[in-house]
Amino acid sequence: MTRRAGREKAGAFLVEGAQAVGEALAAHGTGALRVRELFHTGADRQAEFAAAARSGGVPVHQVTERAAASLSETVTPQGLVAVCDLPATSVADALAARPRLVAVLVGISDPGNAGTVVRVSDAAGAGAVLFAGDAVDAYGGKAVRASTGSLFHLPIARDRSAGAVLDACRDAGLRLVGADGRAPADLDAAADDGSLARPTAWVFGSEAHGLPEEVASRLDTTLRVPLHGRAESLNLATAAAVCLYASARAQRR
Amino acid sequence: MTRRAGREKAGAFLVEGAQAVGEALAAHGTGALRVRELFHTGADRQAEFAAAARSGGVPVHQVTERAAASLSETVTPQGLVAVCDLPATSVADALAARPRLVAVLVGISDPGNAGTVVRVSDAAGAGAVLFAGDAVDAYGGKAVRASTGSLFHLPIARDRSAGAVLDACRDAGLRLVGADGRAPADLDAAADDGSLARPTAWVFGSEAHGLPEEVASRLDTTLRVPLHGRAESLNLATAAAVCLYASARAQRR
Repeated sequence: MTRRAGREKAGAFLVEGAQAVGEALAAHGTGALRVRELFHTGADRQAEFAAAARSGGVPVHQVTERAAASLSETVTPQGLVAVCDLPATSVADALAARPRLVAVLVGISDPGNAGTVVRVSDAAGAGAVLFAGDAVDAYGGKAVRASTGSLFHLPIARDRSAGAVLDACRDAGLRLVGADGRAPADLDAAADDGSLARPTAWVFGSEAHGLPEEVASRLDTTLRVPLHGRAESLNLATAAAVCLYASARAQRR
Repeated sequence: MTRRAGREKAGAFLVEGAQAVGEALAAHGTGALRVRELFHTGADRQAEFAAAARSGGVPVHQVTERAAASLSETVTPQGLVAVCDLPATSVADALAARPRLVAVLVGISDPGNAGTVVRVSDAAGAGAVLFAGDAVDAYGGKAVRASTGSLFHLPIARDRSAGAVLDACRDAGLRLVGADGRAPADLDAAADDGSLARPTAWVFGSEAHGLPEEVASRLDTTLRVPLHGRAESLNLATAAAVCLYASARAQRR
C-alpha cells in the first residue's frame, strides 16, 4: 500500500503520525472519510487515538514497533498508522457544491508539491483540488504528510483527461485561469480590474514543463506572477500560494 | 566542503549543475561573487561553461565522472561543480543599499525551506535575506539548489544574534513585521490600511517553533496570513510568498 497500484488495488491508503491520524479520525467522525483500521504500538500518547477510533467503530490493533515500522514510509516512524478508504470522489462530486475557488494541477509529479498545494488551497479557502493528466497520487505517503491534514478538509479528485477536468470546471461556472510565467498580463493587473473576484479555477502546470499547450489553449486567460527581482520563476507551491491568495482577497473585498 | 564547518574553514562553497553554475559564473562576471575553480567531466554541453570560466580567469579542471561525483551532494551528479568564495557579507553590508523589503529568517533549520525563501524573496523584489539565530547555512548544497540561483541575486547575511539583526533593520529604516498565525491583525487589514506600503522587514520563525518570544516582543507588529479554510497553518515558504508579495504589491500601488 506504499505504492499507488497497491493503494488502488486495496482501495485504501495509509495515514501516519499523530497530527494526520487525528485529522483522519475527525474526518471519519463526520463521515467525510472511512478509517478501516488503526495500528499503534501502545505508547501512552497513542491512547487517545485508540479510544477515538474505538468509539467510532474502527478496529484497533496494538502491534510491535517492528510491525508498525513495516507499515510506515518514513525513516522515523511514529508507531501510529491508520488504514483509510481511498475516497472515490469524482471531479463532478468535487465541484457539486459549486466552489468559487478551485485549484487544478496538471501533470505534476512531485508528491511533496502536491501535498503542499493541497495545504495552501485549503488555507486560501479553495473548495476543491483537482489533479489532471498524468499526475502524482495525492494519497501517497509523502503527499499525505505534506498536506498536514488538509487532504481531509476539502474534496480531492483526479481525472487523467485534463480536458474533462477543464470542461467540468467551466460547467460549474468557473473561469479558467492558468498560471504562466510567459503570460502578457500579471496578477496585479487582474486584481485591479476586478476579474480575480470572479469564481475561478486556477490551473497550474508542473515546475519542469509548465502548462501543456493543449491545456493553455482551452483556458479563459493566463496570468503571470510578477517577478520584481531577478528570479526566473517561482516554485509551484509558492506560485500557487500567491495566486490563490490573490483570488481569495479579491473575492472577499 | 559538503559540511558547514568545512565550508567555513575553506571559506568556500560548492555550486552544482548547469543552471546554478551559469548563475555563479554570471555573478563572477559582475564581481558579485568569486568563482575559484570549475570542475567538469568534459561533456559537450559543459563547453560553454568552461569557456565562460576561462574568460573570467577561473581555473578549469577536467576530471573523471567519479571525481566530479565525489564533489557532488546529489544522487544524480551533473558533472559540473564550481567552487566559490563564501561571501563575507555582514548584515550591515546587506542593508547598505537601504532596501524597502527584506526577509529575516529566525532559527530556521530546513535547508530546502531556506533556499526556497531566498528564491521567493528575490522574486518579490526583496533587497536582502537575513538569517538570524541558530539558522541553517544558506550555502549548503540543498539550500543552494532550492534557491535556483537567487542566492547570487541579492545579498544574504547571517548573525547569530537575532537582536542584532532586528536592530540593524530598524536602523536601516525598516518596520519590523512578524508573521505569526496567532496575531490579532491579518494581512488583508494591513494591505487595506496602507501600513504594508512602508519599508518592511518581514520576520519569519521556523515552522516547528514559530517566532521566539524574545524576537516577537521586539517587533513593531505581527500579522497573520488569513486562513479561510480549515488548514491550521501554511508552511514557511508559502507563508513567506504570500506576505512578501502582499508587501511588494502595496509598495507599488
